[in-house]
Amino acid sequence: MKATRKEHDFLGELNIPNDVYYGIQTFRALENFNITGLSISKEPLLIKALGYVKKAAALANKDCGVLDGKIAEAISYGADQLIAGNFDKEFVSDLIQGGAGTSVNMNSNEVIANIGLEYLGHKKGEYKFLHPNNHVNCSQSTNDVYPSAFRIALYLKMEHFITILERLETAFQEKGVAFNNVLKMGRTQLQDAVPMTLGQEFHAYATTIGEDVKRLKEAQSLLLEINMGATAIGTKVNAPEGFSEICLDYLVKEVGIPLSLSPDLVEATVDTGAYVQIMGTLKRTAVKVSKICNDLRLLSSGPRTGFNEINLPARQPGSSIMPGKVNPVIPEVVNQTCFYVIGQDLTVTMAAEAGQLQLNVMEPVIAFAMFTSLEYLGNAITSLVDKCINGITANTDHCFNMVMNSIGIVTQLNPILGYEESSSIAGEALKTGKSVHDIVVIERKLISQAKWDEIYSLENLITPKYINA
Amino acid sequence: MKATRKEHDFLGELNIPNDVYYGIQTFRALENFNITGLSISKEPLLIKALGYVKKAAALANKDCGVLDGKIAEAISYGADQLIAGNFDKEFVSDLIQGGAGTSVNMNSNEVIANIGLEYLGHKKGEYKFLHPNNHVNCSQSTNDVYPSAFRIALYLKMEHFITILERLETAFQEKGVAFNNVLKMGRTQLQDAVPMTLGQEFHAYATTIGEDVKRLKEAQSLLLEINMGATAIGTKVNAPEGFSEICLDYLVKEVGIPLSLSPDLVEATVDTGAYVQIMGTLKRTAVKVSKICNDLRLLSSGPRTGFNEINLPARQPGSSIMPGKVNPVIPEVVNQTCFYVIGQDLTVTMAAEAGQLQLNVMEPVIAFAMFTSLEYLGNAITSLVDKCINGITANTDHCFNMVMNSIGIVTQLNPILGYEESSSIAGEALKTGKSVHDIVVIERKLISQAKWDEIYSLENLITPKYINA
Amino acid sequence: MKATRKEHDFLGELNIPNDVYYGIQTFRALENFNITGLSISKEPLLIKALGYVKKAAALANKDCGVLDGKIAEAISYGADQLIAGNFDKEFVSDLIQGGAGTSVNMNSNEVIANIGLEYLGHKKGEYKFLHPNNHVNCSQSTNDVYPSAFRIALYLKMEHFITILERLETAFQEKGVAFNNVLKMGRTQLQDAVPMTLGQEFHAYATTIGEDVKRLKEAQSLLLEINMGATAIGTKVNAPEGFSEICLDYLVKEVGIPLSLSPDLVEATVDTGAYVQIMGTLKRTAVKVSKICNDLRLLSSGPRTGFNEINLPARQPGSSIMPGKVNPVIPEVVNQTCFYVIGQDLTVTMAAEAGQLQLNVMEPVIAFAMFTSLEYLGNAITSLVDKCINGITANTDHCFNMVMNSIGIVTQLNPILGYEESSSIAGEALKTGKSVHDIVVIERKLISQAKWDEIYSLENLITPKYINA
Amino acid sequence: MKATRKEHDFLGELNIPNDVYYGIQTFRALENFNITGLSISKEPLLIKALGYVKKAAALANKDCGVLDGKIAEAISYGADQLIAGNFDKEFVSDLIQGGAGTSVNMNSNEVIANIGLEYLGHKKGEYKFLHPNNHVNCSQSTNDVYPSAFRIALYLKMEHFITILERLETAFQEKGVAFNNVLKMGRTQLQDAVPMTLGQEFHAYATTIGEDVKRLKEAQSLLLEINMGATAIGTKVNAPEGFSEICLDYLVKEVGIPLSLSPDLVEATVDTGAYVQIMGTLKRTAVKVSKICNDLRLLSSGPRTGFNEINLPARQPGSSIMPGKVNPVIPEVVNQTCFYVIGQDLTVTMAAEAGQLQLNVMEPVIAFAMFTSLEYLGNAITSLVDKCINGITANTDHCFNMVMNSIGIVTQLNPILGYEESSSIAGEALKTGKSVHDIVVIERKLISQAKWDEIYSLENLITPKYINA
Repeated sequence: MKATRKEHDFLGELNIPNDVYYGIQTFRALENFNITGLSISKEPLLIKALGYVKKAAALANKDCGVLDGKIAEAISYGADQLIAGNFDKEFVSDLIQGGAGTSVNMNSNEVIANIGLEYLGHKKGEYKFLHPNNHVNCSQSTNDVYPSAFRIALYLKMEHFITILERLETAFQEKGVAFNNVLKMGRTQLQDAVPMTLGQEFHAYATTIGEDVKRLKEAQSLLLEINMGATAIGTKVNAPEGFSEICLDYLVKEVGIPLSLSPDLVEATVDTGAYVQIMGTLKRTAVKVSKICNDLRLLSSGPRTGFNEINLPARQPGSSIMPGKVNPVIPEVVNQTCFYVIGQDLTVTMAAEAGQLQLNVMEPVIAFAMFTSLEYLGNAITSLVDKCINGITANTDHCFNMVMNSIGIVTQLNPILGYEESSSIAGEALKTGKSVHDIVVIERKLISQAKWDEIYSLENLITPKYINA
Repeated sequence: MKATRKEHDFLGELNIPNDVYYGIQTFRALENFNITGLSISKEPLLIKALGYVKKAAALANKDCGVLDGKIAEAISYGADQLIAGNFDKEFVSDLIQGGAGTSVNMNSNEVIANIGLEYLGHKKGEYKFLHPNNHVNCSQSTNDVYPSAFRIALYLKMEHFITILERLETAFQEKGVAFNNVLKMGRTQLQDAVPMTLGQEFHAYATTIGEDVKRLKEAQSLLLEINMGATAIGTKVNAPEGFSEICLDYLVKEVGIPLSLSPDLVEATVDTGAYVQIMGTLKRTAVKVSKICNDLRLLSSGPRTGFNEINLPARQPGSSIMPGKVNPVIPEVVNQTCFYVIGQDLTVTMAAEAGQLQLNVMEPVIAFAMFTSLEYLGNAITSLVDKCINGITANTDHCFNMVMNSIGIVTQLNPILGYEESSSIAGEALKTGKSVHDIVVIERKLISQAKWDEIYSLENLITPKYINA
Repeated sequence: MKATRKEHDFLGELNIPNDVYYGIQTFRALENFNITGLSISKEPLLIKALGYVKKAAALANKDCGVLDGKIAEAISYGADQLIAGNFDKEFVSDLIQGGAGTSVNMNSNEVIANIGLEYLGHKKGEYKFLHPNNHVNCSQSTNDVYPSAFRIALYLKMEHFITILERLETAFQEKGVAFNNVLKMGRTQLQDAVPMTLGQEFHAYATTIGEDVKRLKEAQSLLLEINMGATAIGTKVNAPEGFSEICLDYLVKEVGIPLSLSPDLVEATVDTGAYVQIMGTLKRTAVKVSKICNDLRLLSSGPRTGFNEINLPARQPGSSIMPGKVNPVIPEVVNQTCFYVIGQDLTVTMAAEAGQLQLNVMEPVIAFAMFTSLEYLGNAITSLVDKCINGITANTDHCFNMVMNSIGIVTQLNPILGYEESSSIAGEALKTGKSVHDIVVIERKLISQAKWDEIYSLENLITPKYINA
Repeated sequence: MKATRKEHDFLGELNIPNDVYYGIQTFRALENFNITGLSISKEPLLIKALGYVKKAAALANKDCGVLDGKIAEAISYGADQLIAGNFDKEFVSDLIQGGAGTSVNMNSNEVIANIGLEYLGHKKGEYKFLHPNNHVNCSQSTNDVYPSAFRIALYLKMEHFITILERLETAFQEKGVAFNNVLKMGRTQLQDAVPMTLGQEFHAYATTIGEDVKRLKEAQSLLLEINMGATAIGTKVNAPEGFSEICLDYLVKEVGIPLSLSPDLVEATVDTGAYVQIMGTLKRTAVKVSKICNDLRLLSSGPRTGFNEINLPARQPGSSIMPGKVNPVIPEVVNQTCFYVIGQDLTVTMAAEAGQLQLNVMEPVIAFAMFTSLEYLGNAITSLVDKCINGITANTDHCFNMVMNSIGIVTQLNPILGYEESSSIAGEALKTGKSVHDIVVIERKLISQAKWDEIYSLENLITPKYINA
């Protein structure tokens, strides 16, 4: 049987295994919340951010004269351990939990207290020397600690995600250059439209992803506003004069990002607007990435009865029954991940709307949705770049032949022949199966072969010049 | 200047134009709710259903001895006018409104009271003879009248929608028969799979829509449970003994559908589960119809650089710039309507979740979402049947040629040659552009031409028999 | 260095660790799909269901004469191991994956083949004796195996969930009985309405959950339709005559649930309607449970400045700063889980809409969404029952005093005094702070004290009788 | 019988009523799209924007030498009529339509052509003198005209919406000032927390809405990028050299907003990212406004059995059965409108994801969703300001008494007594019903009455100072 120590809170006393650094309140959370099987330990950035917050608070408390120097040093030491990632496994409560993050905050208070106690030469649980609430949580409340730590963690996680997204942008740009001279038919409403290059198509993907990089950075910056010192509901009750500002200064220095203090701490304590904004923007990215994956699957459809303009690298046999079939498995898994993210945006929306009065108690599920969305979508996009886009090749000849065989190239004749004559040519081509060239140059003799060659030169098709009669 | 009459309620007195049949409370609602510009008068079925409810209540009140016969007769007369649709324009309040439907209920109470007053030889507004609350609303509350009327109206509206959906099923069935012998390539993951017929494809559409007809009918039946007599919160306060049952009997007779009484009136007063269920099922229909429209647009893509298996009837010139372009505009508008419905399902979800304690005050937006969804999607499906599906033709030869040109037909050789040999054939075909036939019969001489002909006869391709070596 | 064996597929050759039972295709999937960090092994029911399917297929193949008896016996043995849960850890691919489940199907084919090879006295990887595709997957395709196994697994998982939901219904029923005589104020639109009992309130919760049990069972039954023998796209290509029916018979016997064969196998192969329906119904449950949790939090709000009608059992200290605060943490975590489920319903909706032509390649994310939703919500509801509802107590006196102090009880006087006089009483009470009793009986002398006592007896308040002048 | 003129397009000939200015393509759209019953004429800003675009294009075409001066003048005249709103009723096609806006573009082409023809002394329909496609649509495509006009219209509509939102911010600010000295209990998780002022609460509403004003302005600026000259798919086919830039210059001058040209016209033609971003931001506003309305309904709950801290102005009798009941009907209708907007965000999401290759054909439903959302939510917020917030009053005494009667004020004693002693006091208060004051000062004599008075002075409760032993 495991050795235990006794701990108590105002609900009573419990035996806590001697070897764990968390305490009674974390223990209760462990019993109370058993939803996903995924614990806080899966989000090391959150634990790191809690370390930053607790350290800054301890130092500020010392400066404000409400914490003894030795105590502050011990807390600081414990917080550094969290920052270093040495105690991740002590963060055992479920990612989805009640209590608005109280259990996460208390988990960090308890772990830091016990690390600190050992640092000071005491035993775990001897809280009279270093108390989770009175000392580690001094001048703080879950309602400022949890959102501040969550915001810092999310900021860092977005940093990573944005880097991945920039790799996607670059991958498309490179293919845009590589496919610069691949003439192909543009399509609107899935109907043949007018010619373009495959390079333009991929370059457009780069552009659209590049715009999302900008939007995500804008949204990310909303996270820089934190509310340390707000305490319970933003009125600063129990925080000493100046605590907010000093704590902020330490945090900025520790984390190295330009955090600032919310101008309205009452609003900041309840507001989840930044999360809704970021998740909405991430949803936008998911929408765009899903659209692009739909396109990639369309463009590589076939090989014989589809568009067959591009080839995605073969990743695995496509079928347990159809020999030689290769499927676009990477875009497919990316699409699905995008649907997950779009679903989680709704979860965040509902959780945000459910805030009441001075607090939004649903923040843990918001954190769950955002952490998993950034991680899953980041993983999916990394796969997309490495296992798909970088290996895409073009069926250049097939693309070119489809253009010259199309009816859509009649559009180029509009300025010369007018919309109605052109329509009549298109109609005849469609009905008879003849080529536009034959109808225009040979049958109807509307323009000369030389003029035709000028209009339909590769150069003019790739960069259309305005040519009239 | 218009002649007016004075009316009052406990908030004060107002001048009401003499020529309108609604009264002071409707007038206030008109001032209070100005959201969509769409009024209750747009939903004649709801007004008709209110007529049914008010008539049944009046007759039940008479039977219970709490309403005088003459008064009941006047109310009944007024309610009949609503049923006949003669006073739709008097229902002026916004479809989206606060108050949980109180304004709609009072609108009907006031209009019926004033029709009844004239019937009795009095003037509009002389409520001492026939009062909107004391008489027309006798033994009732908005909280039983509004949901009961809404349910009846919705039931009837679903009836109409289901008829439209059955037309869609039939249209697909007919095309399924017509395309019975059109051999085409089946596709999974947008990659060539194995042959099938266009008839099977359209028959599957019929099957899947037919299943939704069943699901919608099941869901529709949830509307048959009503809560007349529950009054304010389901405790029957102020309703005389037996009122619920007698009122129900009259309603069943009037409306002609097998309504029943909720076994738990407290639950029934707050519950919006039936709406969530129906809207979820309608969303399912939207999902399926959208998927089918996506398919129709894919199958008709081209004409030269797409799949080009089927032709949708041309409805309008497709482009202001590209001559001869014809777009799949009908499936496109149907897709968009499906997205509207899916969005409204979310609106219903949120409104349902927002119910509190003994009532769900958000029922009007639920009604808005469901009425518009049924109407828009019904209109869209009618267009789909009449302006698209019924006119679809097949490009039979092109479909057949694509099959024989495909690599996917190698699957049929699996049982004879094994998965690995077949894979190797597929690989060579893909790399060299050769046909499966040439590799199998001529090059590798794996099977005889006669065997080939047996396996790849139109009959065997359409209805595969198991053929081994 | 680990010992390896060589395996190949048509993309090439790879070294596979000797000790694993999965093969090259699973290995590729492992490399290709790295999204969630959660593998198929987290869903033992899916692996069990794959065992059922593979065993039934092997036996049917033997009966159809396309598999040798010894081979079928070895496959059967391997499948039994999957059913017994002995090889869960071999199912390593990510829950969210491309390829429409091909990797899951191939994973089971490979594991069973290697178990079978050892059973037959061969080594892992000697597929010439027992081949994952030619033998284990004989007469099958991912497109019938994966949905059939998924449906069986989902059916069993729903079975478990429904049991949990029935416990919730029972818990509410018991409290409904326990609180039968607790008179309290009913509220509509958060405004005082008319009296009711706390028992009625909890009984209504039982009723509404009981209805969802019925709806879920209806929806669950849609899963009974499977499509074994459909193979690639529902045309039965490569399945011997009679395979579907014989395979079904074996499955029914093995699993012990009344499975049947889809009447339209082409439709069945692509259709995801059952998932949309079930997930929509599960969303309905989430909506209802969330509403109830909102109510529980409202009713227990306080203790001094809220409704304070009931007490939830204290589960943990509620605040790191506010001493003695106890929060409704269990309903809070349930609310959040409901938001997760509602979000996942959207994920399923989008995935279902994204089906194309003969297949819906997005089924893995549908499986992910449904498995996690059932599990998380099941866990949440279990917590709700065990850690919250069963321990709820009522503040009976406070509830009663609030009723007698209310203005809403004036409604009971409507039938005697009429709506307008009652309104005037209510208005005076509101303005002056006086009690309804004093205004009615003492001031205005509208009814006698005896009449008052009759009307406002506990009995009449709990079960209102119609009382007039 | 109405006089008609004959018009034709490449699908055939039709009779068009002589008195209408639209032509054959609009007529076909009218027949094809019959979904909502709401026509383009409901969105005068879109028609005005089409006027701007068509005028700028005509002038640019003249400058580029591809349109005759007289023709350009006539088009310009016609466009001015659209800008002036004189021909709104000619825009008859359904807001939800297929064809990616072609019908809207052609509607404007036809109406302007016919106005221009009359201006030039010809008859309607004599298109040889002034042709809808060859002249009015010269150098343009639906795919640049429609999004450019939509963006301009949306920009202007957002301008109006933002003004309304600023009024909401101001209204909350004013109440924040008015309620500056109303001490009340703050609540987290619906449990009594620590004191605050009602002014802080309303000021926080102002702050949170003010942030949305900023976010919406940022998002609005994305609309400034347009794609005139892109023509069909962004390759500028059929647009003369310099057209894009000149057209832009004219547009900037006409509309008076700083429009610019998309740097990647291929991307711009298909991208709907700006709409997703704006709609996501508008959803954020809806989420916040809904949360605030939930709060307002909570804070005004009662009057006797709820929180009863504030009074919303009475707008209408609240019940058809409960006399004197007044409900928070304005917040209720606002909540519902917010749910509508949140639903429409999903519609936009799905429509955006459905874009394919070079175009997103679902833009009309995006326009529908955004126009209706801005309009409905704008109307709802205007009601909220004028009919609710401006008339809110506080129950100051009741609020104060609830604070002093609360247990939550024990938090203020933490720094002096420590978390554990404070918890014990809270526990005793809860169990016995005693006041914190009595336990602390009288029973346990932990602090003096003087210290108590210092800590619990109104001033210190409103602006907490850090007070220790």
